[in-house]
Amino acid sequence: MTEVMRVGVLGARGRVGSEVCRGVSAEGDLDLVAQVDAGDPLDLLLEGDAQAVVDFTHPDVVMDNLEFCISHGIHAVVGTTGFDDARLATLRGWLADSPGTGVLVAPNFSIGALLMMRFAAAAAPWFESVEVVELHHPDKADAPSGTARRTAQLIAAARDEAGLGPVPDATSTGLEGARGAVVDGIHVHGLRVRGLVAHQEVLLGGPGETLTIRHDSLDRASFVPGVLAGLRAVGDRPGLTVGLEQVLDLG
Amino acid sequence: MTEVMRVGVLGARGRVGSEVCRGVSAEGDLDLVAQVDAGDPLDLLLEGDAQAVVDFTHPDVVMDNLEFCISHGIHAVVGTTGFDDARLATLRGWLADSPGTGVLVAPNFSIGALLMMRFAAAAAPWFESVEVVELHHPDKADAPSGTARRTAQLIAAARDEAGLGPVPDATSTGLEGARGAVVDGIHVHGLRVRGLVAHQEVLLGGPGETLTIRHDSLDRASFVPGVLAGLRAVGDRPGLTVGLEQVLDLG
Amino acid sequence: MTEVMRVGVLGARGRVGSEVCRGVSAEGDLDLVAQVDAGDPLDLLLEGDAQAVVDFTHPDVVMDNLEFCISHGIHAVVGTTGFDDARLATLRGWLADSPGTGVLVAPNFSIGALLMMRFAAAAAPWFESVEVVELHHPDKADAPSGTARRTAQLIAAARDEAGLGPVPDATSTGLEGARGAVVDGIHVHGLRVRGLVAHQEVLLGGPGETLTIRHDSLDRASFVPGVLAGLRAVGDRPGLTVGLEQVLDLG
Amino acid sequence: MTEVMRVGVLGARGRVGSEVCRGVSAEGDLDLVAQVDAGDPLDLLLEGDAQAVVDFTHPDVVMDNLEFCISHGIHAVVGTTGFDDARLATLRGWLADSPGTGVLVAPNFSIGALLMMRFAAAAAPWFESVEVVELHHPDKADAPSGTARRTAQLIAAARDEAGLGPVPDATSTGLEGARGAVVDGIHVHGLRVRGLVAHQEVLLGGPGETLTIRHDSLDRASFVPGVLAGLRAVGDRPGLTVGLEQVLDLG
Repeated sequence: MTEVMRVGVLGARGRVGSEVCRGVSAEGDLDLVAQVDAGDPLDLLLEGDAQAVVDFTHPDVVMDNLEFCISHGIHAVVGTTGFDDARLATLRGWLADSPGTGVLVAPNFSIGALLMMRFAAAAAPWFESVEVVELHHPDKADAPSGTARRTAQLIAAARDEAGLGPVPDATSTGLEGARGAVVDGIHVHGLRVRGLVAHQEVLLGGPGETLTIRHDSLDRASFVPGVLAGLRAVGDRPGLTVGLEQVLDLG
Repeated sequence: MTEVMRVGVLGARGRVGSEVCRGVSAEGDLDLVAQVDAGDPLDLLLEGDAQAVVDFTHPDVVMDNLEFCISHGIHAVVGTTGFDDARLATLRGWLADSPGTGVLVAPNFSIGALLMMRFAAAAAPWFESVEVVELHHPDKADAPSGTARRTAQLIAAARDEAGLGPVPDATSTGLEGARGAVVDGIHVHGLRVRGLVAHQEVLLGGPGETLTIRHDSLDRASFVPGVLAGLRAVGDRPGLTVGLEQVLDLG
Repeated sequence: MTEVMRVGVLGARGRVGSEVCRGVSAEGDLDLVAQVDAGDPLDLLLEGDAQAVVDFTHPDVVMDNLEFCISHGIHAVVGTTGFDDARLATLRGWLADSPGTGVLVAPNFSIGALLMMRFAAAAAPWFESVEVVELHHPDKADAPSGTARRTAQLIAAARDEAGLGPVPDATSTGLEGARGAVVDGIHVHGLRVRGLVAHQEVLLGGPGETLTIRHDSLDRASFVPGVLAGLRAVGDRPGLTVGLEQVLDLG
Repeated sequence: MTEVMRVGVLGARGRVGSEVCRGVSAEGDLDLVAQVDAGDPLDLLLEGDAQAVVDFTHPDVVMDNLEFCISHGIHAVVGTTGFDDARLATLRGWLADSPGTGVLVAPNFSIGALLMMRFAAAAAPWFESVEVVELHHPDKADAPSGTARRTAQLIAAARDEAGLGPVPDATSTGLEGARGAVVDGIHVHGLRVRGLVAHQEVLLGGPGETLTIRHDSLDRASFVPGVLAGLRAVGDRPGLTVGLEQVLDLG
């Protein structure tokens, strides 16, 4: 990589954004030219001549941010939540008017989490049984986690395509909830334990053997390598891309 | 141990019993003098001059076996299931007439499982959070397992005694069953996966740290050391003893 | 699959072979037509009109077995060990004279182990750190295991290709052996513990996250699905194929 | 607890000290009356009328701190490192002149780590095999960790007392280091992986079963509950106490 990319960060003083600033600054091929947070003018991006931005802000402001960026031909890597089909359609419309500009929207920038989901789906056709366990701190409001639901859906789709039937389960008596929640036929268990951060395990099994794929996320810093990979890819992908896995070669 | 104990095995051709026979035969201080199974006369025990028996038979025959043994002053280590309060009271009555004879009835002869339960209860007062996960082959009929329920009860009692309140859990939205079954306030999760045998994990956590205690049972052979320890102890404990943990020094 | 394949098993009374016989018998599209072991004539294969064989025998006899099979146009799936380059060249020569016949030689028929190696190599470029831990029963003669060495080599090659440097390790004082063996720059640790069978864990880590891929093999039955997959593929792959992963779509 | 204890913290702006300040402030029965760091006069303790201090400072200053505290009858809970036999003897001398004052010096305030060591030693007599695996970030200078060495020593002593011989190990060929370091006959393995913090696993095994005890420390906050427990105990234990486990009921 011979050229340096000039990068602005939106939400630069937030918890993820500040990690992204640190991460961008540490890379030789990236130059942090603008740090923008609530109250700061977006013109800072133009003053710094930013070629691309990273947006970890809020659903209330992200669309304004992106309209500004796209209209100025600035690529964007977006980790802000709240993108439904309507918002994605709006983005596509804006991008149609700005050919050459790329936007990458991703719900998860942890490469470890993406690999876990990819491997779980790739292994699913080969095993009779599979269950998902997610483990988080006890202040989390939803159970199971969004990642666990998504993993279960990917596994179910892979089993379906391979022609596997339902997972075996002879449970006939028991306590309610003992076998977890069921997402598309896949059992999913959520643990809430103080001291944990965000963890997930996929356990697959067939006669005489099991395969376990586990992801442990201990720190927001884990998002940074995925964001950097997104930045390096977004300029070469005009239009809208959804999901970091679309721009990575995950094997 | 300078003297050799003469041992008979009831249920000698069964799955556990045959392992016990192998185990007794391999020990220098134990002599396998009688192998009795369905159809064989109990007099084989007298012919072999057995001092103690191990009984892994069936609820339908175990009481007759024990009446015979106690009346002949033969100690017994019993792994057969189905002992309720009435049966235990009957045993106590028979033993009252045969002072010097000892009977040990235990639901679990796996020393690893006993240590797991003991450590879980000992650690429970020191951690804000705790959950139990049990993992078995998918042909198991009940969920959660009896061992998991018992573990949860022991943990709940230890927390209670230490004055701990309920475990923290901010879950407000989710899928039914995602947080497992609840036994005495403790969340218990049951996985059923082909390739597994019998496994349990207790996960305790406080600020910044977790402690995990896991037991993996892969083979019926795991019962043998507990049975041998029971045999060596039962002669010195006249009367009825319930639970192998009563005769072991588990630290 | 509408047609049934007629299968013979060489080494049919051996520990793996007998599991294979059971496995073949249970499948609707496979017909077990010959069970051959030491002392039995290979002509049993012709009497049963076998289309394919599975060979789990001994390095001393496997080449004679394969010469017989290839000369009669019988496909072969081979798990017997001891294949060096010379033997593979011999097989290729025989197969050149019998176009249409396929032989699959594989050192490992566990699909779980193959997936573990595949995923470890696919994940390796994405993480700064990686180590391999293998865990076996204490009667094993070599450490680390062949699978662990092979895994380390695959990981090292994948890191190399991705341009990663050596794994980070600030260890400056310590006890000899504490950091394990080093295979192509990758640290490999071997545990030997009674009660274990054959297990391996690959632990990858980057800032704030780790990814763990673990394979637990508890029973020889774990080889059967791989053997069956090999049987179903071998007829469509004339010539010599080395490695079960060549005929499976491992994602 | 009806009375409130007035507590001073030495090293209050340090990484552990600041966590301790937060922890003390959050407790109803403890009152944070002095926060002292380098450059501050120790008289702040007297101004706040501190009854006890917590010291997480530096080997260069801790002895002066303790001389001051003991001479003023202030109890001390000490996590600063560098206490050898000579220093402990000095402390004992000072305490002899101040009966009623208690000092608790502990190398480890993580209750989870103490429980792990305690359980490992308690379980050791019951299993033929045992190994220790410690896992840390790759910036750690020593391998194996001090906790792993200490754990191995405790296990070895417990095996010895129980009359167990050496652990079984048939390894006859292999790579150097594959079987780890050996501490008092116990194999110890050290992993260094980015993303990890401080983790340890003790794996015990006998025929057909294994027992695993694992401690994961993810954050310095894990020391706080142990420090608070030390504070609550130190006033009732005049003289010198070494090791937090001496004042806790670890079951």
